[in-house]
Amino acid sequence: MSTVGKVIKCKAAIAWEAGNPFSIEEVEVAPPKEHEIRVKIVATGVCRTDAHAVSLSFKEGLFPVILGHEGAGIVESTGPGVTTFKPGDKVIPLYVPQCGQCKFCLNPKTNLCEKISKIKTPISDQDLMPDGTSRFTCKGKQIYHFMGTSTFSEYTVVAETSLVKIDAAAPLDKVCLMGCGFSTGYGSALNTAKVEPGSTCAVFGLGGVGLSAVIGCKAAGASRIFAIDINNNKFSLAKQLGATDCLNPQDFKKPIQEVITEMSNGGVDFAIECVGNVAVMKAALECIMVGWGTCTIVGVAPGGQSIPVSPMQLIMGKKINATFFGGWKSVDSIPKLVSDYMGKKFNLDALVTYTLPFDKINDAFDLMYEGKSIRTVLVF
Amino acid sequence: MSTVGKVIKCKAAIAWEAGNPFSIEEVEVAPPKEHEIRVKIVATGVCRTDAHAVSLSFKEGLFPVILGHEGAGIVESTGPGVTTFKPGDKVIPLYVPQCGQCKFCLNPKTNLCEKISKIKTPISDQDLMPDGTSRFTCKGKQIYHFMGTSTFSEYTVVAETSLVKIDAAAPLDKVCLMGCGFSTGYGSALNTAKVEPGSTCAVFGLGGVGLSAVIGCKAAGASRIFAIDINNNKFSLAKQLGATDCLNPQDFKKPIQEVITEMSNGGVDFAIECVGNVAVMKAALECIMVGWGTCTIVGVAPGGQSIPVSPMQLIMGKKINATFFGGWKSVDSIPKLVSDYMGKKFNLDALVTYTLPFDKINDAFDLMYEGKSIRTVLVF
Repeated sequence: MSTVGKVIKCKAAIAWEAGNPFSIEEVEVAPPKEHEIRVKIVATGVCRTDAHAVSLSFKEGLFPVILGHEGAGIVESTGPGVTTFKPGDKVIPLYVPQCGQCKFCLNPKTNLCEKISKIKTPISDQDLMPDGTSRFTCKGKQIYHFMGTSTFSEYTVVAETSLVKIDAAAPLDKVCLMGCGFSTGYGSALNTAKVEPGSTCAVFGLGGVGLSAVIGCKAAGASRIFAIDINNNKFSLAKQLGATDCLNPQDFKKPIQEVITEMSNGGVDFAIECVGNVAVMKAALECIMVGWGTCTIVGVAPGGQSIPVSPMQLIMGKKINATFFGGWKSVDSIPKLVSDYMGKKFNLDALVTYTLPFDKINDAFDLMYEGKSIRTVLVF
Repeated sequence: MSTVGKVIKCKAAIAWEAGNPFSIEEVEVAPPKEHEIRVKIVATGVCRTDAHAVSLSFKEGLFPVILGHEGAGIVESTGPGVTTFKPGDKVIPLYVPQCGQCKFCLNPKTNLCEKISKIKTPISDQDLMPDGTSRFTCKGKQIYHFMGTSTFSEYTVVAETSLVKIDAAAPLDKVCLMGCGFSTGYGSALNTAKVEPGSTCAVFGLGGVGLSAVIGCKAAGASRIFAIDINNNKFSLAKQLGATDCLNPQDFKKPIQEVITEMSNGGVDFAIECVGNVAVMKAALECIMVGWGTCTIVGVAPGGQSIPVSPMQLIMGKKINATFFGGWKSVDSIPKLVSDYMGKKFNLDALVTYTLPFDKINDAFDLMYEGKSIRTVLVF
C-alpha cells in the first residue's frame, strides 16, 4: 500500500536533551510539502558535528531534535512542484544546498547558498523546514530538524534544494560519506588549500575528515605529507592513504610546529587543521612557510573561540582560510565525486571502519569518542 | 675633489634614544664595501614606521640609529663588485630587497627576499649592514642602520640588492614615496586584495598609505569606495582621489562595520585596513561579504597584538591577508611604478602635503602626529 501523501511511522534516533544518549523512538514523518521531498534513508554516517550539537557545552541547541547530516537514501515521494526528483532516485541530502539562483550560487568564488539556514542563524544547526514548521512529531511533540537533513531517521523530509541525485549503482552505505566527512576533507585539500603538485603538506587530526584531506593532498600530487595525531592507531591507515611521515606530538619535547618546520626546511607549503582546536590551528599557522604557506582550517572550534592571528604572520605572506563542505558546490559536485569513487579514483571504503545497525547509534558515538573508529556507518 | 673611497662628513638625523626628538648631527659615512653603494639622498618621506621605531612603547629598538626608509637619491660611489649601478644614477633604496636568486625571489607568489633582515630578526628594523658592521659613526659612536636604507642622512650606504635605478627624469621629491607609502597602499589594493572591476571597497585610515589604497581601488575599477577616518579633514582629498562615500565612525551610533554592511547590501567585497589597530582590523573583517569578501591588513599592530579571527568567519568564506610593501617585487616593479607616475596614471603629487628642508624633520613628525599632513617630504 502506497505511503504517498500519508504520514509514515518509522524509527528515528531522538536527542531529547543535551548530554544524554539518543533514544530510538517511533516518529511520525509528515508528507513533503511544496518543493520538498521525503527520503527513505538507507545509511548514515555519524560525525563530530552531530556530537557537538548535543554536547553540554553547546548552549544554543534546540530540543528535541533528530540529528544526522551524512546520509544517503532513496526518494519515497515528492511534494507539489518538485520536477527534478522522482520516487526511487538514489539521493544524498545536502546540508549545503545549491539553489542555483542566489548571489552566492551565481558566484564561482563560494559554495555558500542563501538557502543555508546558517547564514540567517549562524548559532545553531537545529532548525525547522523553510516554512517554519517541522515534519517530525514524536509522542505528540514537534521535533526539530537538523542542518536541513536529519538523517538519523528512517524517513526524513528535505527541501528540493537540499538534495542531489546520484548514480543508481552507488553503494549507499559508502557514498553516504559524501554528505559530509569525505567531501569536506578531500575538498579542503583540493579546493580550499589548493594543494599543488610537488608541495609539502601537514594534516593535523586523522579522523575521517583528516584522512580524507590526506587523500586529497595525495591526489593533488603532494610530494610529502606529514600526518599528525596523538593516537598512534591512526597511522597505519594514514600511511596507506598517502601520508609519508606520521608524527605524534607527544613523542617530541619541542612543539610539533617546530618539529615540522625543521623537517620541512623552513615550513610546509600547506597545513590543514582537521581537529577543531584553536591551539592546533595556531600550530598549523606556525608550521607553514613564510612567503606563501597556506593554513586551511577545517575543524570547527567550540564555544566561539577565536584564533589569535598575528598581523606579522600575515604580512610575512602566510595565508589562512577555512573550508565549508570542502568548497564544493554541492549539486554540481557530489554526483561527480560519486562517479570518481565508482571509477576507483580514491579509497573511500577504507574510511568506513564499522558498519552497524541503526539501533546501535549510541555505540557508534562511543567508538568515535574513544578514537576507535574512523567513520561508523549506520544502516537501517 | 672626489669623495670616492673616502669618508664623507654630512648631515643626518640621529635618534639617540626612544621617545626624544631627532638630533641633526654631523656624521661620518664610510665608503661602500663589496656589493654596497653610497647614495646621496635628495628627498625622503617620513612614515609611521619611523615613528614606531623610536616610540617608547617599542622596547626592542637599537640606539643610536639613523631611521628613514622612503627616500630617493643619486649614486655617489659604488663598492667592489657592483656592476649594475654607476655614479649619477637616480635610485630608490629598498627596504624590501630583491636579490633575484633566493627561494622567495624565484617564487611568483611572494615579494619576500632572503636578504630582508626581518626574516632573520623579525622584532626590530634597527640593524647593521649584511657584514655585521655599520657605515655610520657620530661623535665616535657606531650608529645603527634602519631597514637597510637609513634615508634620514644626506649620504647613506645600502646593499646592492637594496637599491633600484629609476628614470633619470623622475622628480625625486615625489617619487621618494615609491619607497614605502605609495607602493604599499596602491599595491595592497592591486596585488594583495586584488580589487576587481565593479567591486565595492572600504579603506580604513586615510593617511598616505590609505589614500594610496583608495587610488589603487579606483585604478582597479571599483564602483564604490568607502573611505573611513576619524579626521574629517582627510575627506576632500579622499574624494578627489576616488572615494565615493566618506564616513567618520564618530558620526554613527552603530559600529562602523554595521553601517558599511547596511550601506553595501550585506558587506563590501574588499576591505583594506591602513591604521594598524586590531580593533579596526576586526571591524574590517566584519564589514566584508560572507562567501568571498577579502580583508587586507596593511597597518602594523603595535606590541605584537593579535587579531581575534573567528574560524566561523573563515568557514563562511571571508578571507584575510596582509600586504608587505604592496606585494611588489621591488626591483621589478618600482621602475614601472615610476614610469606610470611619469605617464600620469595616478596622482602621487596630491599625497605630498608638505615639502620641508631636512632640518625640519621634527616638525614633519609633529605634522604627522597631529594629523595635519598626508605625507611630508624632507629635502636636503
